[in-house]
Amino acid sequence: MRIGEQSKPVRVGILGCGTVGSALVRLIEAEASAVEERTGLALEVVRVAVRNVSARREVELPEGIVTRDSQSLVTDPGIDVIVETIGGIEPARQLILTALKSGKPVITANKELVANCGRELFEAADAGGVDLMFEAAVGGGIPLIRVLRESLVGEPIRRMMGIVNGTTNYILTRMTEDEAEYSDVLAEAQRLGYAEADPTADVEGFDAGAKAAIMATVGFGVSVVAGDVYQEGISTIGRADIEAAARLDHVIKLLAIVERVEGDVAVRVHPAMVPMNHPLAAVRDSFNAVFVQGEAVGDLMLYGRGAGGFPTASAMMGDLITAAEHLAQGISDSMGRLPDATIRPIDESLSAFYLRLDVEDRPGVLAAVATVFGEHGVSIRLMEQEGSGEGAKIVFITHEAREKDLHRTLVGLEDLEPVVRVGSLIRVVES
Amino acid sequence: MRIGEQSKPVRVGILGCGTVGSALVRLIEAEASAVEERTGLALEVVRVAVRNVSARREVELPEGIVTRDSQSLVTDPGIDVIVETIGGIEPARQLILTALKSGKPVITANKELVANCGRELFEAADAGGVDLMFEAAVGGGIPLIRVLRESLVGEPIRRMMGIVNGTTNYILTRMTEDEAEYSDVLAEAQRLGYAEADPTADVEGFDAGAKAAIMATVGFGVSVVAGDVYQEGISTIGRADIEAAARLDHVIKLLAIVERVEGDVAVRVHPAMVPMNHPLAAVRDSFNAVFVQGEAVGDLMLYGRGAGGFPTASAMMGDLITAAEHLAQGISDSMGRLPDATIRPIDESLSAFYLRLDVEDRPGVLAAVATVFGEHGVSIRLMEQEGSGEGAKIVFITHEAREKDLHRTLVGLEDLEPVVRVGSLIRVVES
Repeated sequence: MRIGEQSKPVRVGILGCGTVGSALVRLIEAEASAVEERTGLALEVVRVAVRNVSARREVELPEGIVTRDSQSLVTDPGIDVIVETIGGIEPARQLILTALKSGKPVITANKELVANCGRELFEAADAGGVDLMFEAAVGGGIPLIRVLRESLVGEPIRRMMGIVNGTTNYILTRMTEDEAEYSDVLAEAQRLGYAEADPTADVEGFDAGAKAAIMATVGFGVSVVAGDVYQEGISTIGRADIEAAARLDHVIKLLAIVERVEGDVAVRVHPAMVPMNHPLAAVRDSFNAVFVQGEAVGDLMLYGRGAGGFPTASAMMGDLITAAEHLAQGISDSMGRLPDATIRPIDESLSAFYLRLDVEDRPGVLAAVATVFGEHGVSIRLMEQEGSGEGAKIVFITHEAREKDLHRTLVGLEDLEPVVRVGSLIRVVES
Repeated sequence: MRIGEQSKPVRVGILGCGTVGSALVRLIEAEASAVEERTGLALEVVRVAVRNVSARREVELPEGIVTRDSQSLVTDPGIDVIVETIGGIEPARQLILTALKSGKPVITANKELVANCGRELFEAADAGGVDLMFEAAVGGGIPLIRVLRESLVGEPIRRMMGIVNGTTNYILTRMTEDEAEYSDVLAEAQRLGYAEADPTADVEGFDAGAKAAIMATVGFGVSVVAGDVYQEGISTIGRADIEAAARLDHVIKLLAIVERVEGDVAVRVHPAMVPMNHPLAAVRDSFNAVFVQGEAVGDLMLYGRGAGGFPTASAMMGDLITAAEHLAQGISDSMGRLPDATIRPIDESLSAFYLRLDVEDRPGVLAAVATVFGEHGVSIRLMEQEGSGEGAKIVFITHEAREKDLHRTLVGLEDLEPVVRVGSLIRVVES
């Protein structure tokens, strides 16, 4: 705040008062005077719209603030900024569009909405001349979106790899560190409240997929939607895979990967072996991180709490202050014209792969197997026999290869007589 | 960029054309059209001021762009934004002040200048109604300053711990991973160009100290200068310390630590043992990282390239685009009124400590030693005997204690008859 300036009141309306909404109300209360001192903005929560007015919640709201009429909030001339914490597509979409049309900046943590209806929302924000901010939609408290939109807007980003789902990272960490089975850890995570009763959205990669779409959209300045994302979850990862990774000094993580490939955008979610000396390998438990590779900036990683009321509220608070400043200045940040991305089919994507084969232990097997890789243009970085006789296995790590070529290799291997069984195929991040 | 808008030319003047200046010129050339497409800003380098016009440099500059007259750049009405890459206090300070007075936003990577004359520069920027941006001054390509100024402006930050000097992190990493001696690694680092011929500023913590002052200023919104920072370097760290840390599952890092303590600010640079499972422990070689602990956001870490031409230029590019947007919008970001920080004396700072004592191996020694700790209010978290007979040692890790109490404990231990020698004292980061 500059000397001589007067504080500017900022009247905040909040849609929803669950974990995130409550945390935001409490954070604003606790920090209002510090924020006013530093920025000159006097934040005040003036309305909170909830489904059930008499429900118990984690924050006490002053008399007269609570309403069931969310529609009235987004058009109320007595409200300057709207914060949406209800989640899901509708009614969040309609409410946000109405708010933007009414000239109110909107702050949201709604990854599903931004990943599915981003362009519509961005255009509505531009038409209204106000901000639509969604820092909390990816990586919770991690300031990824602002860094991509502002710090790195001039950076030629090549690739981003994110651990953006805390539930699956918790499960994989416990499987790795406690030598536990997937199903046991999932049950424990559900008991602790880290996983939903229906864990599908997390463990099958849908949540990470929505975030990948947003990462690609903001990082590359093109429109990528949730449906563009290829995804595989972690429910097929077993102890044998975890142990195989450990033997090779790797750890398995569920990664959201977005890449620029010859003008196309590749965007996918799948488990991958990460080398132990890669910064992503040290991201444990429910923490999130996004690793960014840029032509100029080199390797960059942002790490933090990907979920939870207060980390999410912290990200929304940063957005709220910026939006309020912009409102006072009569400006807004635009996402710009977003051309459609040309999505590279998963078949054409490049990865290194780990593959384990059960084989008959006899001379010439390695050569026969290696020939199949070679025939499909897949080159081998590491090949190692584990065990002998009945339990003989060969483990491979390939160099970067096209998914299509790898799958053709698999078909070829299945036809090979000394190959008893083609086991897990896991993508590998190169260090 | 919004539909229908016209591109806005941004005429950039650059002071200095060494590694960073050259990289920025090349980055602007390479990315100008992508930046124009995304932001509507047409960046163009119109003047570059250098000391020696005919020197060889890493970029070819068009005829007529180069000048020796840096003073003319900062007042030239044909230049919109000034980028300063010359470093040091003068003439950088005078040139920047003149540019700001002339209504030109300034981008700088000059940590020494910002850490010593920050308030003067911030006030000049406010008076001129333009931006002074210095993302590249701390952590090179890591977007720390923007995150602190914007994303976390409403976050109650408790503490930041940074690995902000690449040279010392490279040396400590090589000592740890290659079992090498300090002097050998330093010589190798000098040969590779990672360390200066006179390495004092890096190895004695001055460089990290300047960055700590900036971190505290921006993170806490108070004025902290380089002279406020307590600092110890790494030149006293030997193999015995590295090995002791490894035995305890820790690794030694040079940390810049800034903390809020009861309204005061504690700001210091020193080596510390970091637990292996702490995210900072995975920051290897010349990488930098800053670990932020906030009341709401929880733990956050930003990791990346702390130096080098292109990472630094990338950070400056982000600043440049923002400053140019602000200039077009007629606004600027203020650092606000910065009150003087009350600096907590190092004596009153709290840390956990590691201490190694050579002792006579006889009954009652442990009890006598433990009594001395207790007398000075230092409580012990871990106490372990190493070796026996002549070479007997006792290793301690304390709980958090005041520096003053720890030093009194040391004096007491030196007076204790069975204590042969009081060895290294190293601060410990709690996990």
